[in-house]
Amino acid sequence: MAGENRMPVTVIGLGAMGQALAGAFLDAGHPTTVWNRSAHKADALVARGAVRAGTPAEAVRAGGLVVVCVVDYAASQAILGPLAAELAGRVLVNLTSDTPERAREAAAWAAEHGIDYLDGAIMVPVPVIGSPQALLFYSGPREVFEAQEATLRALGGNSRYLGADHGVAPLYDLALLGLFYSSMAAMLHSLALVGADKVTAKEFLPYIKEFLALLPAIADQVADGIDNRDYPGDLGNLAMEAAGVDHILEASETRGLDSEPLAAVRALMGRAIAQGHGGDGFASVIEVLERPSV
Amino acid sequence: MAGENRMPVTVIGLGAMGQALAGAFLDAGHPTTVWNRSAHKADALVARGAVRAGTPAEAVRAGGLVVVCVVDYAASQAILGPLAAELAGRVLVNLTSDTPERAREAAAWAAEHGIDYLDGAIMVPVPVIGSPQALLFYSGPREVFEAQEATLRALGGNSRYLGADHGVAPLYDLALLGLFYSSMAAMLHSLALVGADKVTAKEFLPYIKEFLALLPAIADQVADGIDNRDYPGDLGNLAMEAAGVDHILEASETRGLDSEPLAAVRALMGRAIAQGHGGDGFASVIEVLERPSV
Ligand SMILES: NC(=O)c1ccc[n+]([C@@H]2O[C@H](COP(=O)([O-])OP(=O)(O)OC[C@H]3O[C@@H](n4cnc5c(N)ncnc54)[C@H](OP(=O)(O)O)[C@@H]3O)[C@@H](O)[C@H]2O)c1
Ligand SMILES: NC(=O)c1ccc[n+]([C@@H]2O[C@H](COP(=O)([O-])OP(=O)(O)OC[C@H]3O[C@@H](n4cnc5c(N)ncnc54)[C@H](OP(=O)(O)O)[C@@H]3O)[C@@H](O)[C@H]2O)c1
Repeated sequence: MAGENRMPVTVIGLGAMGQALAGAFLDAGHPTTVWNRSAHKADALVARGAVRAGTPAEAVRAGGLVVVCVVDYAASQAILGPLAAELAGRVLVNLTSDTPERAREAAAWAAEHGIDYLDGAIMVPVPVIGSPQALLFYSGPREVFEAQEATLRALGGNSRYLGADHGVAPLYDLALLGLFYSSMAAMLHSLALVGADKVTAKEFLPYIKEFLALLPAIADQVADGIDNRDYPGDLGNLAMEAAGVDHILEASETRGLDSEPLAAVRALMGRAIAQGHGGDGFASVIEVLERPSV
Repeated sequence: MAGENRMPVTVIGLGAMGQALAGAFLDAGHPTTVWNRSAHKADALVARGAVRAGTPAEAVRAGGLVVVCVVDYAASQAILGPLAAELAGRVLVNLTSDTPERAREAAAWAAEHGIDYLDGAIMVPVPVIGSPQALLFYSGPREVFEAQEATLRALGGNSRYLGADHGVAPLYDLALLGLFYSSMAAMLHSLALVGADKVTAKEFLPYIKEFLALLPAIADQVADGIDNRDYPGDLGNLAMEAAGVDHILEASETRGLDSEPLAAVRALMGRAIAQGHGGDGFASVIEVLERPSV
């Protein structure tokens, strides 16, 4: 546990997630140096054995592997930009979430300065970090990932290498995050809808969880045919489904709720129906998603 | 299997779902009479032993239990409205999806005419009908449900009685359907996003399914505090999450996708932040959902 054989690591950015990452490295016995713009966020980690660096440059010099996790790439590049010389010859793993385009820009910058660079994405909430089931994506040079894989497993046992293009981890990240935020906003809408009729979140949450558990199996059915642009509607058609969404919107309006996200889904369905997909399955909505009206 | 001891049942409405319901009754050995506006949709069921009624009135007279499943309550009342006399003394179960308000109106109409009435909602796709795990909700008089429970189990083993208020089954139905359509639209958005970078649905679907499987556990965390209006942001805050949604919108725009549903979610988040919830958790969005800006 003393970590004498473990790679010294650096964690820059100690928000909710950065603190969890540094904590997981400490748990795995890595000498861990940390830095955060607001220094007090290192306090609990220092009490657990982390070293607080006075500057980002000092933090970088202490680690063979440097992990960055801040709010976005504008922030990470603001911190890292001036440190190209210190980072050269080290491995930089950026676990900040941002667009594939910005990840590729950062990779180009890193390559220019001789920095081994991986872009990563964290797909689980804070409490899951460090556990065997914690899902993280990585992309960048395969040999860099393979050399760091054992160390990175301290952050999450379910680490996936997605390929050499640095944009792939952020692409997958954003695609799943969109699903996450849309689903969670819809869950809040559901709770508001039943809440208007005096059903508590505590009462309704078990139904939501039971229903959410059905979604992975239904996903296959909905996605069926997308790759070959064929959307069978024999088990459920868009016209019937649009009637269902109208009922939700109507019941929400009766209860004074904001339903803009679902109204936008209904608008997409309406455009798909107008294009002749009324008898097709829900997946046909992808046709209009890919071709905005504006 | 001859069904001599089984209650004769009637199914009105033979769309994708009505056909599955009638098929499940046949499989359970019930003498089954069917009617649909477009008569040909009964063909396959007649081949399996169902009786085709010439009129809705004839259909109703053949069954002790009458199940209706059409596109909405306007359609079901158009069919049933003229049949109050035939329905009196029978049990009517309306499995058509619509608003709580319309279910209560239909219940008042049924009560006026001496019809035992249950409102139900089918929470699973067609292929699941008749299986032990098929989830259906019912509301209406408890004694009516209990008398029909064994028969209704032919449609789905996971039948739930939700209470005497006929509006409860449709309320729960709409709340979960909203979650369903929003999630599935978001799933299509995810597939379109990765698809723009040449990742096929077949390739990406396993990631979506793995991620969807994490949602039930995350639901607890997100819903935490809703009942007591307290939204802890220590594990993830709205300001950071809004930055994440901006990245998704930006990457979607770069790829020419329609992102209106997610943009509407982002607008809700922005309003919550403007009201001081930037440091709170995502669940604080329910505060603005419940108070529309318009
Ligand atoms: N929390 C989660 O559940 C979760 C899950 C998956 C992925 N993530 C990702 O992890 C990353 C961090 O999230 P978080 O939850 O840790 O966010 P957070 O708690 O809001 O922390 C934000 C971090 O960014 C730093 N920062 C912001 N602007 C800066 C700037 N201009 N210069 C230097 N530092 C700056 C903050 O420093 P100060 O403390 O000085 O403000 C803080 O360390 C995000 O990309 C997020 O998408 C989070
Ligand atoms: N399919 C699913 O996966 C699913 C899942 C859960 C719940 N549900 C619910 O089940 C119900 C039926 O869905 P479905 O998939 O069977 O829909 P569908 O295949 O589109 O069938 C619609 C049915 O409604 C009838 N109908 C429509 N307007 C009518 C009118 N004015 N008068 C008489 N009949 C009329 C149609 O008759 P014609 O054949 O003559 O047009 C047909 O029988 C809906 O409330 C839906 O929300 C469906």
